[in-house]
Amino acid sequence: MRTPPARSCTRSRLPNESRTMHDRASRELARQWDARDTLARFRKQFYRPAGQIYFDGDSLGLCSQEAERALLKELATWKMKASDGWSGAESWTALSESLAGRIAQLIGADADEVVLAHSAAINLHQLLATIYRRQFHRPHILIDGFCPASQRAVLESHLYLRGLDARREVLVLPPNDARLLEEAEIERAMADPTLQMAILPAVVAATGQLLDAQRLCRSARRFGVIIGFDLSHSLGVMPHALDDWEADFAFWDHDSFAHAGPGAAAGLYLNRRHFNEAGEIEPGLDAGHAREEISARKAGVGALRIGPCSILSLAPLAGTLRPLEEAGLARIRAKSLDLTQFLRIAIEGEIPGLEIVTPRESERRGGHLVLSHPGAREIRELLRGNGVSVAFREPDLICLAPTPLHNSFVECWDAVQILRRIVESKTAPPSSEEEVLGTFATL
Amino acid sequence: MRTPPARSCTRSRLPNESRTMHDRASRELARQWDARDTLARFRKQFYRPAGQIYFDGDSLGLCSQEAERALLKELATWKMKASDGWSGAESWTALSESLAGRIAQLIGADADEVVLAHSAAINLHQLLATIYRRQFHRPHILIDGFCPASQRAVLESHLYLRGLDARREVLVLPPNDARLLEEAEIERAMADPTLQMAILPAVVAATGQLLDAQRLCRSARRFGVIIGFDLSHSLGVMPHALDDWEADFAFWDHDSFAHAGPGAAAGLYLNRRHFNEAGEIEPGLDAGHAREEISARKAGVGALRIGPCSILSLAPLAGTLRPLEEAGLARIRAKSLDLTQFLRIAIEGEIPGLEIVTPRESERRGGHLVLSHPGAREIRELLRGNGVSVAFREPDLICLAPTPLHNSFVECWDAVQILRRIVESKTAPPSSEEEVLGTFATL
Repeated sequence: MRTPPARSCTRSRLPNESRTMHDRASRELARQWDARDTLARFRKQFYRPAGQIYFDGDSLGLCSQEAERALLKELATWKMKASDGWSGAESWTALSESLAGRIAQLIGADADEVVLAHSAAINLHQLLATIYRRQFHRPHILIDGFCPASQRAVLESHLYLRGLDARREVLVLPPNDARLLEEAEIERAMADPTLQMAILPAVVAATGQLLDAQRLCRSARRFGVIIGFDLSHSLGVMPHALDDWEADFAFWDHDSFAHAGPGAAAGLYLNRRHFNEAGEIEPGLDAGHAREEISARKAGVGALRIGPCSILSLAPLAGTLRPLEEAGLARIRAKSLDLTQFLRIAIEGEIPGLEIVTPRESERRGGHLVLSHPGAREIRELLRGNGVSVAFREPDLICLAPTPLHNSFVECWDAVQILRRIVESKTAPPSSEEEVLGTFATL
Repeated sequence: MRTPPARSCTRSRLPNESRTMHDRASRELARQWDARDTLARFRKQFYRPAGQIYFDGDSLGLCSQEAERALLKELATWKMKASDGWSGAESWTALSESLAGRIAQLIGADADEVVLAHSAAINLHQLLATIYRRQFHRPHILIDGFCPASQRAVLESHLYLRGLDARREVLVLPPNDARLLEEAEIERAMADPTLQMAILPAVVAATGQLLDAQRLCRSARRFGVIIGFDLSHSLGVMPHALDDWEADFAFWDHDSFAHAGPGAAAGLYLNRRHFNEAGEIEPGLDAGHAREEISARKAGVGALRIGPCSILSLAPLAGTLRPLEEAGLARIRAKSLDLTQFLRIAIEGEIPGLEIVTPRESERRGGHLVLSHPGAREIRELLRGNGVSVAFREPDLICLAPTPLHNSFVECWDAVQILRRIVESKTAPPSSEEEVLGTFATL
């Protein structure tokens, strides 16, 4: 069973179909949307920080009761079974494999194409070491202008280790004037016969833009380019169909919309076209033991795990996947689009002139909405001080990430009201500003 | 404050000094030793699997109340503070750094020479990528004949990635006829001017042999060889003095005598002689973000962390370190030597002819005792079925790892009695064997 391709689920379903996208938002409208929210019942399963509207799920997803239960279950196994926890049908190794199978379903892959381990950065190191080839005539790797410093560092150090130079081998595609990436430009870059590999985000963290991964995979196939995606900002908030798209690889963390905890065991996908005839992979960064362990049962990307599984960093996933599976990614995606659409309408109505970087069209929008403001860093602090948790991203970006499983439309409305007062105070004289902030503190 | 060099603490302190090493062991003697055990009070802090004498601490250390408390503390932070857990004085980043400082004390290092992250295998990958140089005239790496398959795989894949061939570059030093490694042989190998690096275990997992790390480091310095140690089977059960020894690097996991849980965040040490003048390191496997995070505060090996810290796999360490620090590694080492010495006396008295591979001398003995028997695998299963948890290691080895913080001398005696009956049954006719095992089941 694979989840349907993302494209089929991106239509925003307004609760009241007669309303248009540009209706004036209001707290009353938010209440109506909440009343019709079929995912509202999941809200009480999450531990929400007291007095906060938590829109920072893109940095760290909230802990749920299910996640806690799953962690405590493995703690109990350690306490009661000790080293026997590694053996038997309910072993920790089996846990890791069954979770890989469930994540595989969420991203449209087969179980033996997924391994859950390490950090996203280590997984990118592993993928480069495993499938990037040192080819004189085809050395180049394409990344986008928003590629985070951590991934650039991975690329630079990996290429250096192999006697190559990232300044020469890595091509960076800049965004357009609206700070968006254009698929056509990416395709033009892929047509270059010296390009071996493209590494792109499914959703750009900095801008909230959703790339057309299916189209890009099709082009990559046509040009013989290996294409891989960072799913860190999309997994858990929308479906993916990696096998159907014929993507080559993917990597991601589970800290954000997968709600698996701080520094949770991350994930890695490698399409089976990179397996050999026996269904095996020669890992670039090998650690034999993991491979022996796996090969007794099955081949596949399990060989790419470097050392034993970090059980306590993996365990919460066994719980957090339950609401994701129960709600279904199609419904989650639909509510996510409604939430960011409502936020947009509210911001456009209440704070005219505030720049929204994230594309308007639902098929180009990820799970979070990004605003631009010269005072973004300070606004983020003021929002936090007034009970709204959001992320700041360099140089001037504010990221609002409402999470479909626990955020409400009323929270969106209330957050926008607080944001409005802060933005207005930024242009008011100092005394007035203090007054306004004084009021906020008692919210 | 550094812990004293291991060598100064290896004298076994018999509770009754008038007894000689070869006194006949008995349950009464065990009771006497237990009565004088100054670490006995720690026993009740550990969750011991019901009905088991747990001598498998070398595979997975038991969970303690302190470890559980420390894990639940970080779980509570996730629940209550969510992404704010990453900021402030009590942040998860600060937790990781303070734990690195405490582990540094246990191994005789400075805080900025230690990072806690990943698996031991990833840390070895990182160290090779960071300090092994591709030198035509000095390419060789020395390992020992017991080097585990996982580490060989790390070496092979690392060298392959850099265009080298492990079959040519890696020299394997075989053990002697008694299955022990000889320091003099290692030194002879280090005198070879083509040798760049030596990677050795502080304690050989397969045999329980403790190498003279101080002597080997001295020789390595003399010959200009980079020397590194795997501390996985010694950390937490004896002191180390890496800086005093002038070791170059070390790596280890925290699953065994550090009691930090299944797949706990591992450790890595790099001597500051490998830092540049600014106190920085260029990581072989970089992941920029971690480096930025660290460099704001301090330089050092923090840069070698590849991605964010796995908080839930690290948290138990904050608890398990407490009894280790309170008891002190010198006392822990002393009791550890008493336990393995008592086991030896008991085995020699009760099961004459059973081969003990681990050296007799305390200065050559690690924290566990290894037996050899052609039926080792089956004996391990029978021991387990009769309430004694031990590890089997290929091809014919049984590893008894009594843990000073929770094992008693009476447990040693009782385990040897069960072992005696099993070994005797292996030579008795089938009917008798069944009878004996039937008896065991009711123990």
